[in-house]
Amino acid sequence: MSRKLRMGMIGGGKDAFIGGVHRIAAIMDGETELVCGAFSSNREKSKESGALLHLPAERVYGSYEEMILEEKELPEGIRMDFVSIVTPNHVHFAPAKLALENGFHVVLDKPMTFSLEEAKELKKIADNSGLLFCLTHTYTGYPMIKEAREIVASGKLGKLRKVYVEYPQGWLSKYLEVTDYKQAQWRTDPKRSGIAGAMGDIGTHAFNMAEYVSGLKVTSICADLNINVPGRLLDDDGTVLLKFEGGASGFLFATQVAAGEENNVKIRIYGEEGGIEWQQEDANTLKVKWFDQPTQVLRTGAPYLGSFAKHNYRVPPGHPEGYLEAFANLYRNFALTLRARLDGRTPEKEWLDFPGIEEGIRGMAFIENVVKSGRSERKWTEFEL
Amino acid sequence: MSRKLRMGMIGGGKDAFIGGVHRIAAIMDGETELVCGAFSSNREKSKESGALLHLPAERVYGSYEEMILEEKELPEGIRMDFVSIVTPNHVHFAPAKLALENGFHVVLDKPMTFSLEEAKELKKIADNSGLLFCLTHTYTGYPMIKEAREIVASGKLGKLRKVYVEYPQGWLSKYLEVTDYKQAQWRTDPKRSGIAGAMGDIGTHAFNMAEYVSGLKVTSICADLNINVPGRLLDDDGTVLLKFEGGASGFLFATQVAAGEENNVKIRIYGEEGGIEWQQEDANTLKVKWFDQPTQVLRTGAPYLGSFAKHNYRVPPGHPEGYLEAFANLYRNFALTLRARLDGRTPEKEWLDFPGIEEGIRGMAFIENVVKSGRSERKWTEFEL
Amino acid sequence: MSRKLRMGMIGGGKDAFIGGVHRIAAIMDGETELVCGAFSSNREKSKESGALLHLPAERVYGSYEEMILEEKELPEGIRMDFVSIVTPNHVHFAPAKLALENGFHVVLDKPMTFSLEEAKELKKIADNSGLLFCLTHTYTGYPMIKEAREIVASGKLGKLRKVYVEYPQGWLSKYLEVTDYKQAQWRTDPKRSGIAGAMGDIGTHAFNMAEYVSGLKVTSICADLNINVPGRLLDDDGTVLLKFEGGASGFLFATQVAAGEENNVKIRIYGEEGGIEWQQEDANTLKVKWFDQPTQVLRTGAPYLGSFAKHNYRVPPGHPEGYLEAFANLYRNFALTLRARLDGRTPEKEWLDFPGIEEGIRGMAFIENVVKSGRSERKWTEFEL
Amino acid sequence: MSRKLRMGMIGGGKDAFIGGVHRIAAIMDGETELVCGAFSSNREKSKESGALLHLPAERVYGSYEEMILEEKELPEGIRMDFVSIVTPNHVHFAPAKLALENGFHVVLDKPMTFSLEEAKELKKIADNSGLLFCLTHTYTGYPMIKEAREIVASGKLGKLRKVYVEYPQGWLSKYLEVTDYKQAQWRTDPKRSGIAGAMGDIGTHAFNMAEYVSGLKVTSICADLNINVPGRLLDDDGTVLLKFEGGASGFLFATQVAAGEENNVKIRIYGEEGGIEWQQEDANTLKVKWFDQPTQVLRTGAPYLGSFAKHNYRVPPGHPEGYLEAFANLYRNFALTLRARLDGRTPEKEWLDFPGIEEGIRGMAFIENVVKSGRSERKWTEFEL
Repeated sequence: MSRKLRMGMIGGGKDAFIGGVHRIAAIMDGETELVCGAFSSNREKSKESGALLHLPAERVYGSYEEMILEEKELPEGIRMDFVSIVTPNHVHFAPAKLALENGFHVVLDKPMTFSLEEAKELKKIADNSGLLFCLTHTYTGYPMIKEAREIVASGKLGKLRKVYVEYPQGWLSKYLEVTDYKQAQWRTDPKRSGIAGAMGDIGTHAFNMAEYVSGLKVTSICADLNINVPGRLLDDDGTVLLKFEGGASGFLFATQVAAGEENNVKIRIYGEEGGIEWQQEDANTLKVKWFDQPTQVLRTGAPYLGSFAKHNYRVPPGHPEGYLEAFANLYRNFALTLRARLDGRTPEKEWLDFPGIEEGIRGMAFIENVVKSGRSERKWTEFEL
Repeated sequence: MSRKLRMGMIGGGKDAFIGGVHRIAAIMDGETELVCGAFSSNREKSKESGALLHLPAERVYGSYEEMILEEKELPEGIRMDFVSIVTPNHVHFAPAKLALENGFHVVLDKPMTFSLEEAKELKKIADNSGLLFCLTHTYTGYPMIKEAREIVASGKLGKLRKVYVEYPQGWLSKYLEVTDYKQAQWRTDPKRSGIAGAMGDIGTHAFNMAEYVSGLKVTSICADLNINVPGRLLDDDGTVLLKFEGGASGFLFATQVAAGEENNVKIRIYGEEGGIEWQQEDANTLKVKWFDQPTQVLRTGAPYLGSFAKHNYRVPPGHPEGYLEAFANLYRNFALTLRARLDGRTPEKEWLDFPGIEEGIRGMAFIENVVKSGRSERKWTEFEL
Repeated sequence: MSRKLRMGMIGGGKDAFIGGVHRIAAIMDGETELVCGAFSSNREKSKESGALLHLPAERVYGSYEEMILEEKELPEGIRMDFVSIVTPNHVHFAPAKLALENGFHVVLDKPMTFSLEEAKELKKIADNSGLLFCLTHTYTGYPMIKEAREIVASGKLGKLRKVYVEYPQGWLSKYLEVTDYKQAQWRTDPKRSGIAGAMGDIGTHAFNMAEYVSGLKVTSICADLNINVPGRLLDDDGTVLLKFEGGASGFLFATQVAAGEENNVKIRIYGEEGGIEWQQEDANTLKVKWFDQPTQVLRTGAPYLGSFAKHNYRVPPGHPEGYLEAFANLYRNFALTLRARLDGRTPEKEWLDFPGIEEGIRGMAFIENVVKSGRSERKWTEFEL
Repeated sequence: MSRKLRMGMIGGGKDAFIGGVHRIAAIMDGETELVCGAFSSNREKSKESGALLHLPAERVYGSYEEMILEEKELPEGIRMDFVSIVTPNHVHFAPAKLALENGFHVVLDKPMTFSLEEAKELKKIADNSGLLFCLTHTYTGYPMIKEAREIVASGKLGKLRKVYVEYPQGWLSKYLEVTDYKQAQWRTDPKRSGIAGAMGDIGTHAFNMAEYVSGLKVTSICADLNINVPGRLLDDDGTVLLKFEGGASGFLFATQVAAGEENNVKIRIYGEEGGIEWQQEDANTLKVKWFDQPTQVLRTGAPYLGSFAKHNYRVPPGHPEGYLEAFANLYRNFALTLRARLDGRTPEKEWLDFPGIEEGIRGMAFIENVVKSGRSERKWTEFEL
């Protein structure tokens, strides 16, 4: 199939942050083109955004329902192949459901839905549809995170003992939701974000990284959730003790009130023989530590990396790739897999390595469990799906 | 003008490195699309590359001459707006000339030409054409390099005294040009690279950064050029003492035999009151140092940055951008300026900030002067244009 | 008083680690000399150690009782002024008691005693004696830790919200207590270390730093303590959620099974306006972060530091000081205070800034509370003295 | 011999910087004690300094001549064993000569003398005396510098190609010699410093490191020396191209006008197979880089280090040592060697590894050659002794 895949976008109008990120990520590698969009539930705004994106007016829609239903009627050589949904959490389930039910593959921003119940329902719909589904947990798109996972999986570090994951931000240190800062408004609004604030926004990313890199599932948690800014309605901070299957333990912390911090998500994992350390501020580096040997500094693009890390990089070592490329790796792997399917080829295992419905379910379960644990007087809360 | 700009590419077939980089950089921001290409002087290879890029067969050409002349005949709504030339150095001048003479704007990889003489000739052609010209000195696309330039220009650092720029690589530590490593072959071949090796490939980048950030012109140099690998035909290493207008001094070193080094281009500039330091391995950080105050760590995306740094970034602080985004900034500014011109609008000053023909001339003069100095027994060689 | 202070040492024979550290720390600044010692409870070993230290044989004793009682009988111009006790935890209380009761000032390694009960008893003895007492919580001796405390105390960071302190080590990743590794033997032995392992050894340091820098007292904790190495008798790892007076929260983790980690104790504190970050691997640097301004990098020796940081440094900026100097700062401040007292002068406030009996009590309370919390099924355990 | 070695100090009165450093370095390890001093040529000031150092008044002298001649008359069990000379450069030769001629071993601050001629004369005197001589090139005392030398010497890096050494400082960015800043006064005064400023003060350190770590001698140089501050009499800055025996090349830069820089001396060496990198700001780390393998991070105190690095460290990995310990390593090795000689034992090879008269000669030759080259119009100046 020698053509680009065709993407329609839901949400991501001109004032949004994450919509632009998705668009860059989707088109960067030349596998996908943006062909249509419902960028806002306000038809005017949607049209305006579409024009700025150089889309033909007739492919810019006033609502996602309109887009999905009208695109479905377009001829095969023209209509979109998949939708990318980048709306706030409360508008995840309905457009994803409608897209799947009308034959469109789906890329969906995290957390997957508004509630765990919705997530389970969506899983059923996706499973029935037989369509491809990608959930954009960006950080697992980093090549050195993939390398870390391969090293852990190889057993070289020995039996895992500790998993430390942290996600410090400072942008919500002030009471910004009463200003006209849109991102701050909806992230702190239970009606649009759901039952969790920081835990839903960035805690789910940290949780996903912990399970992805360690290859272990969390079995019980002990959460201390806090609201640090008076008047705020959702947690802006929390620390969570973790227990994993097989006996490893650790913590996850996610905060949006660490004033002066940007977005330096970091993971450290230790086994009996050694450990790994990665942080987004130095994203092209993976430190591998050993009980009694020198620490090794692994770098993106290097010849000694495993196949997953190599597949997810574009340039020679020393030419740093960043957040947008990590994000693009999700879209690229989704696109390569989709293209293989459309062509009737078997996708490579490296292409299939993008987060999907299962990660979405576990992320929503994390939110429910962490809120439950935060309210509990008992130390440990079992992690339930 | 609500459409994407249309780019045709010359060179950059499937085995090339820099062609893919140019394509990502060009399309990432949604301002430009690749519509045609002459990816190789071998028609078969060109076709094959075009198919991989999902281009329609009829827009994939067997030579740049064919592309330029045939595209010229296409209707305005279809034909390319500009060419991107990503061939080895000896195939820079001719396609650039032909494109300009046929009304196509040009983006050209560095160094500008094969010789200074060609560079001067190209300048005449470009000046006469009145068309836009961009030379891809990638590193000036980094937002923190732009911030560094603004800080220097503000005078806060006081009168400049020292400019240290370095570009260590290790990839040519071995005699790779006798293997089938294409990049190593042509970079070390005087017939394709010109009279300089490392100095032409990466020395020109370092030189460009030094002049761009300092705002000062080099006036004399003292070069020690070396061939470290027996059998090699061009310098793979050199250190150059620099004198600048106004009295500042410093050095430039560029080496491709620092085994274990990747691509960590770095610049340090000091004035009477303080200094700046930036390196590609930590590209989102600019250190600003002061005689008797704490060093400040400036970060991409932050609210306190100047308008040039802000214009050249896409995401909030802490979401690292890298080499591809720096490269994309060149294409984006070129595209914004071109679009403004096509629309009859005045471009913003931030859009106009991309390297062009003058930087190309100085880069070629650097090559000629540095080789001359390397052969001279006198300490100082005047920098002549 | 123009003479050096005279120190006698209890413990610290030739195979011990911390004894040598104390000796370097004590004499480095020329304020104190080692004049006698009971380096081992084995007379032979004590003599052997004394000879290696160039002590006259008659001042090397076979037990601490002997040393204290015999030194007491020596003339004033000769006998020791204070003892330094560097034995394992179960031999802290008795020699400290005996020294105080016989008129000798005391420097004591942490944790203060074997149990909280002993600690309280020792406090009474010390209070009654009117003698000087220093507990060697090394890390509060670092100048940048003192600067951090001053910045927090100044209120510039705003009301504190988060305190994160961590102490990762890897040296007990293997079952070393069954080898002839002395340090591993006693640290993991409940009869010599007390009821806690990692929490007593390094958790107490982390706890002390958290309270010292934040200026806040911990009010409740939630601990997850673990034994990771089969056969081990005491915790080798733990993570503890913390609540502080005034509403701040955070965590402390201390582990000795993070294979590949050395000793990189680290603290981060955030208030409404900004935060501080320090880690021992980069001990001469303090990062001060701000909500919307560039991070500042403060460095030891710099002219802009506060009086506490300045007093605790010896050389100009850029000449790194380390662990031994931090340790020496405790001894130096103890010595300056003691000398002032002996001379009838009032010590400067900077000299008085060394840890003492109160920090020792809180450290022992931490051990008791953290073990209690570790065994509790309730989330929060009140921090009781 | 079970006693401490006895040191007398020349220079290093209460306002001096380097005297205090020498004293800490000398006594830290318990091998040496300060027994007498001529701390100033002003008898009053010398007495005052001696009192602050808790020395008995009768061992504090009014001049170095007095000290040397009077100490010589004291009984063997009391008189000093060696002198430590920490005066400005113009008062190096005479006291060193007098000490050697009167049977005292010598520790001398760098650069060795005021001129190369004096240096050659001092070598003759030292050789004739048969006494021990140590020149305090501090940086070769760092354990990781010793490790770097061992790695280079092992041949693992392959044939050396590049040696880059740099020493940036900023403290002389202003015209401080007209204030009452004593250090600035004599460092910039040709009558006290000699023919070079920055090159003599810190350039000699950098030169010494380059030759020590590479194991290669410099054979020719090309210097650009500058005076950046109007009114200053000696170079405050310079960059020097270097050629080494065997074909390696590189540069040395030393500047005291890089405003905002502290003292971050740094060395990088590359061979055909890999390279090493060390800088004082991260003194406990040595990076070892490889052509196609991960960089290794070697750390002081680690079990995998060579015997020289291990011998020159005191504490377990992760407890940072710094400048004072590096300095102390020189004194300790000098003392261990001296003690062995006094005891008639053969010193270990690790003890003998401290800089001496040969390094002093080469340092003074560097000063003469670099000034000569700086004035020459020819590119290369042969390095002559």
